[in-house]
Amino acid sequence: MRTRLIIDTDPGVDDAFAIALAALSDDVDLLGVTTVFGNVPLSATTRNASRLLALCGRDDVPVAAGAARPLVHRHPREAGYVHGLDGLSGRAASLPEPSRELEPVDAVTLLANLLDAAEGPVTIAPIGPLTNIAALLAAHPRCAEKIDRLVIMGGAIGHGNSTAAAEFNIWSDPEAAHRVLAGGEVPCVLVPMDLTYRCAVSAEWLSTLAATGPVGAALEALTPDYLDHYRKALGWDGIVVHDAVAVAEAIRPGTLRTERAPVAVECSQGPGRGATIADLRRRELREETGTAEAPSAGIAVDAELDKLRDFLFERLSRHEN
Amino acid sequence: MRTRLIIDTDPGVDDAFAIALAALSDDVDLLGVTTVFGNVPLSATTRNASRLLALCGRDDVPVAAGAARPLVHRHPREAGYVHGLDGLSGRAASLPEPSRELEPVDAVTLLANLLDAAEGPVTIAPIGPLTNIAALLAAHPRCAEKIDRLVIMGGAIGHGNSTAAAEFNIWSDPEAAHRVLAGGEVPCVLVPMDLTYRCAVSAEWLSTLAATGPVGAALEALTPDYLDHYRKALGWDGIVVHDAVAVAEAIRPGTLRTERAPVAVECSQGPGRGATIADLRRRELREETGTAEAPSAGIAVDAELDKLRDFLFERLSRHEN
Amino acid sequence: MRTRLIIDTDPGVDDAFAIALAALSDDVDLLGVTTVFGNVPLSATTRNASRLLALCGRDDVPVAAGAARPLVHRHPREAGYVHGLDGLSGRAASLPEPSRELEPVDAVTLLANLLDAAEGPVTIAPIGPLTNIAALLAAHPRCAEKIDRLVIMGGAIGHGNSTAAAEFNIWSDPEAAHRVLAGGEVPCVLVPMDLTYRCAVSAEWLSTLAATGPVGAALEALTPDYLDHYRKALGWDGIVVHDAVAVAEAIRPGTLRTERAPVAVECSQGPGRGATIADLRRRELREETGTAEAPSAGIAVDAELDKLRDFLFERLSRHEN
Amino acid sequence: MRTRLIIDTDPGVDDAFAIALAALSDDVDLLGVTTVFGNVPLSATTRNASRLLALCGRDDVPVAAGAARPLVHRHPREAGYVHGLDGLSGRAASLPEPSRELEPVDAVTLLANLLDAAEGPVTIAPIGPLTNIAALLAAHPRCAEKIDRLVIMGGAIGHGNSTAAAEFNIWSDPEAAHRVLAGGEVPCVLVPMDLTYRCAVSAEWLSTLAATGPVGAALEALTPDYLDHYRKALGWDGIVVHDAVAVAEAIRPGTLRTERAPVAVECSQGPGRGATIADLRRRELREETGTAEAPSAGIAVDAELDKLRDFLFERLSRHEN
Repeated sequence: MRTRLIIDTDPGVDDAFAIALAALSDDVDLLGVTTVFGNVPLSATTRNASRLLALCGRDDVPVAAGAARPLVHRHPREAGYVHGLDGLSGRAASLPEPSRELEPVDAVTLLANLLDAAEGPVTIAPIGPLTNIAALLAAHPRCAEKIDRLVIMGGAIGHGNSTAAAEFNIWSDPEAAHRVLAGGEVPCVLVPMDLTYRCAVSAEWLSTLAATGPVGAALEALTPDYLDHYRKALGWDGIVVHDAVAVAEAIRPGTLRTERAPVAVECSQGPGRGATIADLRRRELREETGTAEAPSAGIAVDAELDKLRDFLFERLSRHEN
Repeated sequence: MRTRLIIDTDPGVDDAFAIALAALSDDVDLLGVTTVFGNVPLSATTRNASRLLALCGRDDVPVAAGAARPLVHRHPREAGYVHGLDGLSGRAASLPEPSRELEPVDAVTLLANLLDAAEGPVTIAPIGPLTNIAALLAAHPRCAEKIDRLVIMGGAIGHGNSTAAAEFNIWSDPEAAHRVLAGGEVPCVLVPMDLTYRCAVSAEWLSTLAATGPVGAALEALTPDYLDHYRKALGWDGIVVHDAVAVAEAIRPGTLRTERAPVAVECSQGPGRGATIADLRRRELREETGTAEAPSAGIAVDAELDKLRDFLFERLSRHEN
Repeated sequence: MRTRLIIDTDPGVDDAFAIALAALSDDVDLLGVTTVFGNVPLSATTRNASRLLALCGRDDVPVAAGAARPLVHRHPREAGYVHGLDGLSGRAASLPEPSRELEPVDAVTLLANLLDAAEGPVTIAPIGPLTNIAALLAAHPRCAEKIDRLVIMGGAIGHGNSTAAAEFNIWSDPEAAHRVLAGGEVPCVLVPMDLTYRCAVSAEWLSTLAATGPVGAALEALTPDYLDHYRKALGWDGIVVHDAVAVAEAIRPGTLRTERAPVAVECSQGPGRGATIADLRRRELREETGTAEAPSAGIAVDAELDKLRDFLFERLSRHEN
Repeated sequence: MRTRLIIDTDPGVDDAFAIALAALSDDVDLLGVTTVFGNVPLSATTRNASRLLALCGRDDVPVAAGAARPLVHRHPREAGYVHGLDGLSGRAASLPEPSRELEPVDAVTLLANLLDAAEGPVTIAPIGPLTNIAALLAAHPRCAEKIDRLVIMGGAIGHGNSTAAAEFNIWSDPEAAHRVLAGGEVPCVLVPMDLTYRCAVSAEWLSTLAATGPVGAALEALTPDYLDHYRKALGWDGIVVHDAVAVAEAIRPGTLRTERAPVAVECSQGPGRGATIADLRRRELREETGTAEAPSAGIAVDAELDKLRDFLFERLSRHEN
């Protein structure tokens, strides 16, 4: 069965792999791509999204720009230190110019229009801050019923990356994340960094991918700053393709093993700001302590890692030019 | 000059006076009315809004239903104890049935469409929780430029009513209020309860209004529970027409004297939740303490009270049947 | 009847007037003075306290140094911009050297010892951050029963001075203030800046005081920076003797008119941090909204201002040299 | 070298094992035991502590009662559902009556006196809420220099037990925990539940212990409710002796492998309240994100588990009667 998919994204190097994964998959109806501030400012994430679709020969896919700031509070901190100042290791300009214009509507309108027009349920893969999705639910609550599920890259069950407690996407807009993850309005699968780290790919994997053709080569060419980040900050010779893990689940449901749990996001201004709190305690313990909430999301906790890497490789090397 | 106006509302008895004020004013282009949860649940506020327009003979004005819950957190507490369980002292059913259907789109879409279609800047008077307005700004940031100003009923500079610290509208959705009031995206005038309380009208004033004709009589007929609230809870024999004070300013700019100030809303889960913090300290003190922020709203601090009551009376008794 | 009194203080110019008021009052048993960080660092507040007692010829009064930092969080901001960097307009060195050594115990131990030794109930006047008092209650809960009442200078019912929401003493240690004011362990009278501002004294009043003798002259000599602060930051030609108003009430119960109310302090890291939330709403309204808490403090809301100024003047000019 | 030790405790079944471990160790100078509210109310934790010392024949050890409530906020929730309503599986009454009276001073005074009197640095093992320790530091800052280190049982690096985010001891008084763990006043080792869970002992281990003599038998007799808790709530047939793991480290430094890290505790009223946030990210990542704080505690992350269980067994079976 084909998956109707919309990606909401802030590219970002790992977003690039995620977009390419969907764009090159012929069992996916990629209905649209919406953009959000995040790894780099909105203007850069929007340009990057369009160029990545052009790279994959997908000028048929509409792109619309969304939120340039978080839902409630101002002043996010971007992550140019991870992805390079243009979001793509300084290589954004090397990607092809898109022939398709940006949609003349904002991201939330495109999302609402695509959902309205879809003939069946649609999967959305939000792989940046959750601002556009929270705004969609708040502004157009009736859209919820057309969403099959949200497969969200975000959150840290153990420790975070942006702060000790918080993962970047959630930390960038904790209030939006709380609305989406705790609100119970749409089925959610949360793919936290605890799992995505386990799906890291090596520099060698990237080199092999580069040899498969122009798209593989172009993707690999976006990774130097990102590789550098993992080498310096984490001591690895490889990269974490966080967002591609979520999109893999979005287009092949069941790729990741999930556990249903209540999820909340800490929205204080204290040290826990942006912490994603998934209640993975045993049900009996939750009940005994009088702190049992209803599950609001599926948390991705495991995967067959080698199979997943092979799946990514196979799809990302699928193109003719 | 005619004012293009949209009212975003959760009627509520004082909302009823505010809607009638705009609906009966021939120097106002009442473009639409959007509804939000608040004093009572959304289904009731929406029905009330439509019937109040019907009462005023304004079936030409479109109505659309908006948010049924706050922007970020769940579980508001409504205020049926103030306005009666139906929002209108149990008298909602006495109002005429509207002949016009509800718009088939949600409030944010109606707001966006009306703003897009307007030939010039539009004033919005949000007189309930600020959820719809925050959602509009988050989902459709380009709409901001078509908004002349928001004239918002809400907030308490001294002490609150819903809690010791917070006024009902802001307390019902502090995160939405912070987005709107601190965001700096659109010009805001905030009409806090400190001022609206000074514009209370007496039971006698209401009786005199009732004698002016069917609309005055119908409005007065909505007040028994609300009068009762002020009598019991505040020891007054009269009512506070909070929202009508804001709409008066919306349609006659300058009615209220304002001071520009930085505004923030406390969004913690502590005792200050929903407190509206307007920095009315002298500029020199703000600078000396290193806590000076840029002004983000005009705070209504004073008015010629008798003139204002006369203005309300004159407009609300303006109708032919 | 004589009042047994301990002052807990962070001098500060207005603290100087407060200490002198107690030190020169022969109907007061000034059992001790304890110091706390606040207007300036602890070393300066402690030295200032000792010298002020020496100025008043009260080397019989023991002084002990207390907390150098807040109860829970680090990094307060001091108020040298108000009181001068030494806390006394740069004139601390002009005060006499004390002949009495500092107590070899910390402030909380001195407080506990004085309370244990007292033959009857003791009034404490905390006129700085409430850190020492909270620590006393937490460490030595049995001391509570020996405290007749705390007469606390602190808080803002309307707007603050350190921030838009918070008064300096409470803002300097909100968690300590919440423990003391909301804990219900000891009777509290809170003297907020709303009232102390109304008890300001003019530059002329100060000049007249200076002419009464050496203590009046020395006190007036401490005011230049503080006068300057009020002139620049608030546009007044006078000073607010906040702390002396509280000590006046401490030594003459009933000087201030109080209302009992539930009090809480906002302890978030948001814009309301340090806001003192006294629930002065009518009881009926509190009950109707389901937000009624038990009163935990008396809030000073009014005074006979001229009488109070005369009382201060009379006491501060009472000395022979 | 002998360890001078004070235990601050809220027994609690696992506290019982921890107290016995210290009381039966002849290389430990057990200077005193102080009690705090926690698993059960203060009156019960104090009685339990005295009886446990009597069981071990240690009527030479002074006991003093401390805080009955948290440092800042009221209303803790106790854990009678884990330890039985008397804290010891309903078996408290089966323990011997102590012949020694409770100290006539409060816990903080006993702590200060013992520290003052000690001829060298003292280890404190706080194994309940950190209220007494925070109060000691706030009230008597000079005591800090006599503390060799605090070996604290508390916190959850992954998920909590009292809530999804927080471990019971920290959750019971987050503000006290933040003061102690983030304050940098004394060297801290934090032994989180992530590690203590790995040191669980089986029902069989307990039976074998019971056969070693009267103390082992008495300890085992305290475990039925606690075993029941782990069986029902966690699906185990054994118990976690959290506090004994911390005391093992206290009396044999190096038993646990630690990593130094900045630690903060979330003090909001949101879902993260009481979360212990230890920044275990690589230093390079902390620096890159601009969120590097100075390490403030050692976090126990590993141990030789079998050796540790053997050490506990050997010590707990060491007694003659």
